[in-house]
This record gives sequence, structure tokens and C-alpha cells, in this order.
Amino acid sequence: MRPSGRAPDEMRVIDIQTGFTKHAEGSVLVSFGDTRVLVTASVEEKVPPFLRGKGEGWVTAEYSMLPRATHTRGSREAAKGKQSGRTQEIQRLIGRSLRAVVDMKKLGERQIVLDCDVIQADGGTRTASISGAWVALRLAVDKLIAEGKIKDDPIQARVAAISCGICDGTPVLDLDYIEDSSADADANFVLIEGGQIAEVQATAEGATYDEEGLLRLLRLARIGCERVFAAQGAATGR
Amino acid sequence: MRPSGRAPDEMRVIDIQTGFTKHAEGSVLVSFGDTRVLVTASVEEKVPPFLRGKGEGWVTAEYSMLPRATHTRGSREAAKGKQSGRTQEIQRLIGRSLRAVVDMKKLGERQIVLDCDVIQADGGTRTASISGAWVALRLAVDKLIAEGKIKDDPIQARVAAISCGICDGTPVLDLDYIEDSSADADANFVLIEGGQIAEVQATAEGATYDEEGLLRLLRLARIGCERVFAAQGAATGR
Amino acid sequence: MRPSGRAPDEMRVIDIQTGFTKHAEGSVLVSFGDTRVLVTASVEEKVPPFLRGKGEGWVTAEYSMLPRATHTRGSREAAKGKQSGRTQEIQRLIGRSLRAVVDMKKLGERQIVLDCDVIQADGGTRTASISGAWVALRLAVDKLIAEGKIKDDPIQARVAAISCGICDGTPVLDLDYIEDSSADADANFVLIEGGQIAEVQATAEGATYDEEGLLRLLRLARIGCERVFAAQGAATGR
Amino acid sequence: MRPSGRAPDEMRVIDIQTGFTKHAEGSVLVSFGDTRVLVTASVEEKVPPFLRGKGEGWVTAEYSMLPRATHTRGSREAAKGKQSGRTQEIQRLIGRSLRAVVDMKKLGERQIVLDCDVIQADGGTRTASISGAWVALRLAVDKLIAEGKIKDDPIQARVAAISCGICDGTPVLDLDYIEDSSADADANFVLIEGGQIAEVQATAEGATYDEEGLLRLLRLARIGCERVFAAQGAATGR
Amino acid sequence: MRPSGRAPDEMRVIDIQTGFTKHAEGSVLVSFGDTRVLVTASVEEKVPPFLRGKGEGWVTAEYSMLPRATHTRGSREAAKGKQSGRTQEIQRLIGRSLRAVVDMKKLGERQIVLDCDVIQADGGTRTASISGAWVALRLAVDKLIAEGKIKDDPIQARVAAISCGICDGTPVLDLDYIEDSSADADANFVLIEGGQIAEVQATAEGATYDEEGLLRLLRLARIGCERVFAAQGAATGR
Amino acid sequence: MRPSGRAPDEMRVIDIQTGFTKHAEGSVLVSFGDTRVLVTASVEEKVPPFLRGKGEGWVTAEYSMLPRATHTRGSREAAKGKQSGRTQEIQRLIGRSLRAVVDMKKLGERQIVLDCDVIQADGGTRTASISGAWVALRLAVDKLIAEGKIKDDPIQARVAAISCGICDGTPVLDLDYIEDSSADADANFVLIEGGQIAEVQATAEGATYDEEGLLRLLRLARIGCERVFAAQGAATGR
Repeated sequence: MRPSGRAPDEMRVIDIQTGFTKHAEGSVLVSFGDTRVLVTASVEEKVPPFLRGKGEGWVTAEYSMLPRATHTRGSREAAKGKQSGRTQEIQRLIGRSLRAVVDMKKLGERQIVLDCDVIQADGGTRTASISGAWVALRLAVDKLIAEGKIKDDPIQARVAAISCGICDGTPVLDLDYIEDSSADADANFVLIEGGQIAEVQATAEGATYDEEGLLRLLRLARIGCERVFAAQGAATGR
Repeated sequence: MRPSGRAPDEMRVIDIQTGFTKHAEGSVLVSFGDTRVLVTASVEEKVPPFLRGKGEGWVTAEYSMLPRATHTRGSREAAKGKQSGRTQEIQRLIGRSLRAVVDMKKLGERQIVLDCDVIQADGGTRTASISGAWVALRLAVDKLIAEGKIKDDPIQARVAAISCGICDGTPVLDLDYIEDSSADADANFVLIEGGQIAEVQATAEGATYDEEGLLRLLRLARIGCERVFAAQGAATGR
Repeated sequence: MRPSGRAPDEMRVIDIQTGFTKHAEGSVLVSFGDTRVLVTASVEEKVPPFLRGKGEGWVTAEYSMLPRATHTRGSREAAKGKQSGRTQEIQRLIGRSLRAVVDMKKLGERQIVLDCDVIQADGGTRTASISGAWVALRLAVDKLIAEGKIKDDPIQARVAAISCGICDGTPVLDLDYIEDSSADADANFVLIEGGQIAEVQATAEGATYDEEGLLRLLRLARIGCERVFAAQGAATGR
Repeated sequence: MRPSGRAPDEMRVIDIQTGFTKHAEGSVLVSFGDTRVLVTASVEEKVPPFLRGKGEGWVTAEYSMLPRATHTRGSREAAKGKQSGRTQEIQRLIGRSLRAVVDMKKLGERQIVLDCDVIQADGGTRTASISGAWVALRLAVDKLIAEGKIKDDPIQARVAAISCGICDGTPVLDLDYIEDSSADADANFVLIEGGQIAEVQATAEGATYDEEGLLRLLRLARIGCERVFAAQGAATGR
Repeated sequence: MRPSGRAPDEMRVIDIQTGFTKHAEGSVLVSFGDTRVLVTASVEEKVPPFLRGKGEGWVTAEYSMLPRATHTRGSREAAKGKQSGRTQEIQRLIGRSLRAVVDMKKLGERQIVLDCDVIQADGGTRTASISGAWVALRLAVDKLIAEGKIKDDPIQARVAAISCGICDGTPVLDLDYIEDSSADADANFVLIEGGQIAEVQATAEGATYDEEGLLRLLRLARIGCERVFAAQGAATGR
Repeated sequence: MRPSGRAPDEMRVIDIQTGFTKHAEGSVLVSFGDTRVLVTASVEEKVPPFLRGKGEGWVTAEYSMLPRATHTRGSREAAKGKQSGRTQEIQRLIGRSLRAVVDMKKLGERQIVLDCDVIQADGGTRTASISGAWVALRLAVDKLIAEGKIKDDPIQARVAAISCGICDGTPVLDLDYIEDSSADADANFVLIEGGQIAEVQATAEGATYDEEGLLRLLRLARIGCERVFAAQGAATGR
């Protein structure tokens, strides 16, 4: 029995509230149970130096936890003067995941920045960020299309992410904080609508796992991502 | 006529939503019109080095704008590696304002950190932060009292803040972003319930002002803070 | 009776020594009693990025305390790797105060940097910095006019600053360190010759104050700034 | 045909030179073809703050590229004043991988730091670092055992890592730089002697992959890690 | 003929004004011609971590140029967030030079920090700093002796420094800025009263020099340091 | 008798291994006994801002110790976020020493960066770096000449460096770590083939020295540098 009473392959409630803030081209408050992340998509009519003049766009992400998103207050990275290794690792993953479904030529020479700020954390903040970022990106691109700035849709598919893990020997889907901190193995999957894999990050913590374990986690992830794809579709109508 | 259609002494709608996040001892989403700030109060059973062993507590604040709280995206201070002068100035003001109404001996040797994160900015983020921080602080202190950790209430009064300014020669109350960026003079008042002044920061921008102008702004601020005190009372029942 | 034996509305001796260093376009050692600040004005034939090509100039300031300007040695900000919030707050105030009396179009596309380095501190370093900075700016602008680089004088009026406070219930003018550290309320006024207000920063420390208290401090500040304007005139002949 | 002429499941030459430097408790120069990493293991009789007094040890890693390890010179992180996100991600992975095979209670309250400095880079620097770090750790622990500081061997198994990828549709083992920069998908596997998985990081770049692709890469990784385990055994005699 | 009209072995006017600021235990404004440095000596009743509990003291130095000490304004190190290599090199030299004449056991477990802030630069700021720092140190130690905190004088001798160089083939003493920027070779000597050498730093710039050149510079330095010793004696009466 | 059993004027074994890494235009592993430094020379077709458009080149250096090059592990400068004063002082010395023998006009508008990374430290790392850097520079320039990018050889002579010191009253050549940490005086000489001096840095530590002592150290340095010149010649054939 899981601490939350959920079945091993049961997700938490997903909620995607679009238009949560008004200035961003795309904005969403995404919840996976008690994990809540505010994601904004900002369109900038410039690209990083290495892309200038190539006629291609870029998608990148930044991630942060509000200091009291967690059980005890963490110190503010801006006050410490640097981002932690964990923060950088996560924001690199988010950016890479979104870029996996965007045709940069169709996007044109502009950049979309996805800011993922965790309002409340209860496990799975990076996967919620990716899943929500796709919605914010979708909204921002729709706006560019509506304004006539982009002709062909550069987004090739939905992308979603979910965490799975092995808790007390049982593979389970969508870990909350209690499960996350006691899991034997912990894996994050980024999947693309239609079945392809964009990224797997599977880490043994305490206990290791074998090929069969990896496959069982992947199958749970497929179940979970189907749910996320549906929620993304409902939120955006695409 | 003000851009928003408000009368010179008319405030924007104030909304104070308590318990917006679950981990913090006090948590509030405060809105002044389209300006929205998430404030959390975190109780820490330790004090800064200069107070250790003195039997007194401390109240301090940190302030940040989410990158896309504004019309165009601002760069993230954690990524730049330092907090701007503006950020530091504001968070020092918030901490000082709250300390003006707290009896540190009654608080006991513990610290309360008020994190003010601006979700959406439309003028007056620092005054909304102060006004909301009082509510978050009140909730956290109530929790300490309920748990028996504090006997006598260390909060001596409500404290609230509001901005006023002179726009096209007319003193107006509670400036939004459009007014703020074109005001001739801009003042922030931090007032204590009962009529005392905790802080005045009045700056001429373009045009200067005289004693009469300062007094007219102060009188507007009194009107505004009365509204804030009422909203604080309604939100906390105290 | 004040610790220094001064009457409530009595200033410390003001001394303004021009030409204290030889390289700067304007240079002054300003003393308010034992508070001594070296201010230099440096003319740079460039402007910050946000002003490029607009035909307007800029005036900005930097502030620092020498490590042993104070009773006990403070650590050097260059060694710590960052400027404190207090330093940034003060240098922003100095720059804003001077800009209040400069016509940026008449200055032309150049920048004047006012460096205020506190040699010895005994209260009122920020107000001494502003008062001295006006003299250094005046000298630098006179040099630009003499060299034919500027035709119309961009300085519209004198600007001066002074601190006032409420000590043991009595409003007093030009606080020294002893008064400053025990004052119930502490205010800095930046006034423009002729009676206008450029900036008010009034903070309750311990005790709060009311409208009447604020006005009494403002009136003391007017007395003090008249003295500063006279000293500025004597030092520059303008 | 691979650019190097190797068969899809053919590794580059592995060379492990122990005792490359004299001060470290364990020291190794590990080569996978032209990729060469100097790894030292330093024993410190202290643990990080979060472990103090718990009777447990810690294993951690730091990673760096010498500026000219690469085709064109990269700027030195010490000169830039911060470690890149890539560096932090890699050193976190190395530390986690080694901790997967160490019993921290048996290690006792001491820390072993694995410094991985890339002398020359030709793809696979993180996996070479992990594979070499195990040897340096083994040597350092053997020294602790020989000195009588540790009684029971805290190292539970060998751990090795290898990269695999899909190049032009073909899964290949142990990518060099040319393959790495053009691979459709790129995966790093950290495997434990005996068949368990410690970590999988598989990223689609350009093309995505499916479950079958992931499994084929995992099988190649098993072949490669067997070769690494053998080289580790030959280098340490254990 | 030198630009200043001085003879090759002629020093600039030395002026040492003691008690320039009031808070520091030792304070001096030292001038070598137009080079002016404010040096303060601060006594701290603590030592750096590596000396704790050893019953020995420490002498250290910090050095800084005010931004407009020079012909054109240099950026402020506190604003840039780090000290330049030049600054660090100079402050290490100053500290080492002073430590050469102090008996750390007699000083007792306390630290004296010498802050050297260049008010105006015209060549030779590091040697003026060392020469002035000895006076500030002497004053601070005299105060410690007068207060009974130290019994035996820990200062064993005077120490002074001077720059020499080869300009247009001629060895000259005490270079000013014009000579310094065009010298073929530039040397700084730190000499101890009585004839011993504490430090030589001789650098070829453009042209190199030979043993005979080095000796001629050393002899000039002896002439110069005799003058400095006399000025130090006159300033301190010791 | 020296700890190593060497005669006072006896050098350690010098070994210069060229082509130690493959990407750099010049690469060398230089050993002076147990001190081993990897030096790479990187040619960059750009110059620092102050030289742009002047038709001249630049030679600069960076220096670093690997964390476990020493007896006990030192913390990594990239992790601490800044280079120590010692590091900066050394890399400035290396750059200056090499520039003393390079004709910048003949080098043309390009920069050569010499990266000196200490693999193992046993005294004399800065002098080994300079001596090895000349070889790396020579190899890189030879490559530029062979490729036809440079016509006239910009390297005017060999440059070498060695440390000398006074140990127990005896001047000795090429100090190892044990001697270095107990020497009364410590000097680094940078000499140019043919007899000229590029740089002398002689520091008293504990005991001071006199003119005769300085000359005896210089004569030892001449003996040592002759040996280095020979090894440089053997390694490069020039």
C-alpha cells in the first residue's frame, strides 16, 4: 500500500490552469497533487550568440524553487549568489526535453524562455515542470501563429515527463515526496506522444535495479504520460 | 481622470488569500489589482549571529520578482549571481517595516523569515509585500501561540504600506504601473494602525514637490492604509 | 542637552575643501564635524547602454566606506566580493538626488560619475556625500563649460541633504554617530535651493512618529540645508 | 563503418596506469583511446556537516576539464568564477555512481574525494572518470585497510560506466568525439559488476528512440562494462 | 634630465602626516610627491584560523586604489565583485614586508590589519604604502604598549620600500608615473634599517638588465630608503 | 647536507616530454624532480581588447594546481569561485616572463595562451612552469611558421626560471618542497639566454639577506638556468 493510498500505477490529480499570469506569452500553473509549478513562456526576438544569423530559433528553460516551497525553508539562490548543481541539472533537462519536439527552423530566429518556478513541492517538480512547460510553449507558439509571425507550426508533438520508482520492491508511478525520499530507485522519463523516448534518467539509491526493473518503470511511465498528454490536450485544445 | 478610471483617492481591489501554500507557517497570496505577491512566513528556531544568546528574536525579509512578473522578461537574479540594488533596498524596507510592530523579547530567540515573491507586477509590489507580510507573520505567530511556544503576543499592531504619487499635478493613491512610470513624484508610506508613521520614502522624479505636496500624499496614504488594515483584519480575524 | 553640547537646531561645522586630489575633473573633501568624505567627479565621454544615441547625459554615484572609517574595522567590500545592501541603497540615493537638479539634454551625451569615499565616519555620511557631490559636480561642469564642451549650464539649482532625528523626544538637526545610534526616528532630507523637496526618507527605529513629528523634522532640515547651500556657494563661487 | 574503423560493439583501448602521482592515497591515469583522465582519491578524516557524528563516511567527486583538453581552448572555470552546469552535472553523477557500491558505515566517519581532471578529451570523459575513479577509490581503501584504519572492506563491488549511442541508425559502443557530436541518441550507463544497473542517462539528440533502442544500447553497455571490469581487476589485483 | 627635473638619485618630497583619521589605532597620510596613500592600522583581538591558540600574532595588509586616484577613472573593485591580480599581489607584498620586522610572539595573539588606500597615484603606490604602513604599525604598537597590553616591543627595526628603474639607460630613484610608464626596467626594493634586504622585485619591461644594472638599482634604493627611515623616525619619534 | 643529498649547486633531474597532449599547438609535460607541470600553448586568432587593430600579438598565461598535486588536498578554485592571490601572482609572472622574449609585431595580431597545470608539486612549480612554457610556446610558434602564418620568428631568445634559497645559512639551487618550507630566504630568477635578467623576486622569510647573499643566489641561478636552456634546446632542437 502506498502512503497516499494510491494503486502502484495510479497518478495524482493533474491540474493545468492556463493564463495564470497576464504578461507572459504563455502561462500555466500546473499541479501534480500537491506539487505546483508556475511556468511562463517568454518570446524574445533574439537568439543566443552561437545561433545568430542562422535563421534558427532556440528554446531554453530556467528552474527555481521558491525558498519555502519545501518542508523547511531553503536558502534563496539569488542571495547565495549561485544556482546549485541540482538547479542547473534540472533546467538543462527541461530545455533539452522541449527542444526534442520543436523544429528550430520553423520557429525562426527567436528564443522562447520557459521559466519554471516551484510554488509548492511534493515530489516530481522536474517532471511537472516539463509537462507544464509544453503547455506554456504551446500557448506562446499559438500566439505567434495567430499574430502571423510564424507560418508553419514548429511544435512536432506533445512531450511529457513523469517519475517512477521502486518502493519496497514495487514499481510505482508518480512518486510524491514521502515515496521519493525512501525509494530504492528513482527514474524520470521524458516521453513523446506516439511512443518515442526523449530522455531516461534512472538512478539507483540504496538498491540497484536490473533490466527487468528498468522496463517495468518504463511501462509505468507510458501509462502516466498518456494521462499527461490527455491533460495537455484538454488545456490547450490541441 | 486616471488611466484606470479610478478616483484620485480610490484604491484598487485588495484580495488576501491565506493558506496559499501548505508548508509555510504563514502563507498568503496578496493582490492589489493586478499586482500579486506570494508571501510566506517561515519560523526558524535560530537567530542571526549578532543576537545569539540575548533572548530576543528577529524578523527579516527577502524579496524577488519572478522573471516574467513584468511586461518583458527580466533576467533571473540567481542566474546573474547577485541581487540588484533595488531588490536589496526593498527587502531591507520590508524587514524594517515589520520589525516596527514586533516586540522581539516576546518573540523569543527565534527568527521569522518573510519571503515575498512577486508573481505578477503592476505597480506597488513593495507596498503589497509589506501589507501581505503582516498577514503571513500574524498567521505564523498565531501558530506559535497555539502550539504554546509563545505566551504573550509579540505583534503590537497592524502595519500596512501604500504608494501615492503626483500624476499630472494631482495627488493620487495606489499607483498602478502606468501611473508609476509617469508620476512626477512617488512616495511609499508605511503606517501603523492608530496613526503613527513607520517609514516615509518620497522621491521626486522629474518634478519636485513641496511640504504641502508631501502632506497631501500622507493624507491619501492614511485613507489607503485604513483599507488595508480592514482587509488584514478580515483575512486573519484579528 | 545633546551629547555634543549643540542646540537642537545647531549644525556641526561644515568644511568644503575643493581640489583635494588632482586628477578628477571635480574633487572635494567635505566635512560635517568629524564625518569626512572625499568626493570626486569624473567626466566620461560615454553613457550607459540605455541612453546611447539619445543625445542625453547621465549622472551616477558610487559610495564606499574605507574599512577603518568607523570605530571598529569593517571588512572591505572588494575583498568580500560584493557591495552590501546599505552601500547600494546609499549610492542609488546619491545619484538620484544629483540627477534631480541636472538637465540631461544640456549635459550632452556624457556621463559624470560621483565617487563618494568615506574617510572618517561620525554619522550623516550619505547626506555629507550628497552635499559634497554637488560641489564636485559643479566644478566638473564648470570645467566642461570653460573648455567649451557645454554651452548652457545643465545644473538647475543647488541640492543639499541633511539628517534629522528624534532623540529623547526632541527633534534635532545633523545627528552625529552617538545620536544616530540611539535616535527614536531618523530621517534624511534632500532639498533643492528654493524650497522644493527632492527626497524624504524617514524611518522609525524603536519609536514611531506622527505627522507633526515629520513636519518638525522637515523644518529643521530646511534650516540645515540653508547652511549647506551657503557653504556650497562659498566653495564654488556660484 | 565507424569513423575509427571499429566494429559497433568494439571498445577503444583501455589503459589504467596506477600511481600516476605520488601524494594522493589513490591515483590513476585512465585512458579510453585518446580520452585521458587523471583521477586522484584523497582521504580526509572529516565528513560533510550533514553527516557529523553519525559514524558514517562519504564519497564525493569533483570534475574538471583542463582548458586545452579539447580541440579549441575552453575558458578556465576558476577564472570565470563558476563551474558550468555541465561540470556540476557530471561531478554529481560520478559521486553518486561510486556511492552506489560503498557501505558508508564500514568506511567510518571519513570522506574520500575523487578528483577527475580531464587531461585530453575525445568523447566519454564522464564514463572514463567513473571507471577510473573506482580504481583510485579501491587503491585508497586498500591503503586504509593496510594501515588498519578500516577493518571490513566497504567496497561491495566494482562499478564501471560506458557511453553508447545510435549513429546513422546503428547502435554503437564507446563513442569517440566524432561519433558523440553526430549521434542521434546518446546514453551513459553505470553498471555494477554482477549485472545490476546503477544509473542510466539516455538522451535523444535530433532523433528520438524507442524501447527496443534503449535495450540494444543497454546490451552494448553490458559488453563494454565487462571489458572495464576486467581492466579494473588487472590494475588493482582485486 | 628626468621629466621632473630631479637628479637620478633624487627623491620626491616625502611627507608623513600622522593621526589623519581618528578611529584607527594608527593612522597616517603618506606622500611621495603627488602619490598619496592613507594607511590605517587596526588592532583586532583575534588571529586567523591557522594561528589560533598558538600564542602568536599576525600582521596583514589590504590595498586599494580609489577609483579616481588615477588619470582616468578605474572601475571600483567592490562593484566588479573581485580584486584584481595586481591588487592582491601588492597587498601580499605589503603584509610580507611588515611581517619581516615583527616578532609575532611578542605581539601576542592579536592581529594588526594595515589598510592602504591610495587617494592619489603618481607612481610608487606600493612602496609608499609599505613605508607608510610601518609608521601606522609603529603608532598602533606604541598604543598597545602604552595600554600595557604588550610588554616587549615586537617591532625589531624600521622597514621601508622604494622603486628604482632604468630610464633611457640611466638608473633613477623613486619613479613618478611618467617615468614608470616608460622605464626599461622597474624594481621595487624593501629594505630593513641596518642594511638587510627584505624583498627585491625587479622586472624587465621591454629591455632586460644585467647583474651590474641590478646592483646599481640596489644602491639607489639604499639611498632612498635612508631618506624614508629618517622621515619615519621624524614622524614617530622612534 | 641537503635533505635530498644534492650538492648546493646541484639541480634536480629535468625532464621535458613534448607532445604530451594532442589538441594543443604546443604541449609539454615538464618535470623538475617530483614537480610535474603540464603546459599547453593555445593559438587564438584574436587579441585582448586593448590591442585590437594594432597589428601586435599577445602572450598570456594561466596557472593552476590540481587539488591533489600537494601533500594534502587543496580546495578547487573553480568550486570556490575565485582564484587565490597566489595563483594570480604566479600567472602574471609567467606571462610577463614569456613576453620578455617575444617580438609582438612579428607574432602578428594573435594571442598565445600558456596553460600551466601542476600535476604534482614538490617545490618550484612557478619556475618549472616558466621553463616548460617556453618549450610549449616554441612548439606552437614553429607550427605557425611551418603553416606559413608567421614569416619571421618572433621568439628572440630562450627564457628559463629557477628558484634558489638560503637554507641553514647556505645558498642552494632548485629547492624542493622540504627546503622551500624551511628556507630563510627564497628567490625566483627568470633569466634570458645570454646573461640578461628578466625578473628577480627575492623574499626574506624569517631571516633577511644582504647584497652578497643576493649575488650568490643570482650566481647559482645562472648555473641552474644554463641547465634549463640545454634541456629546452634538446627538447625542441632549437
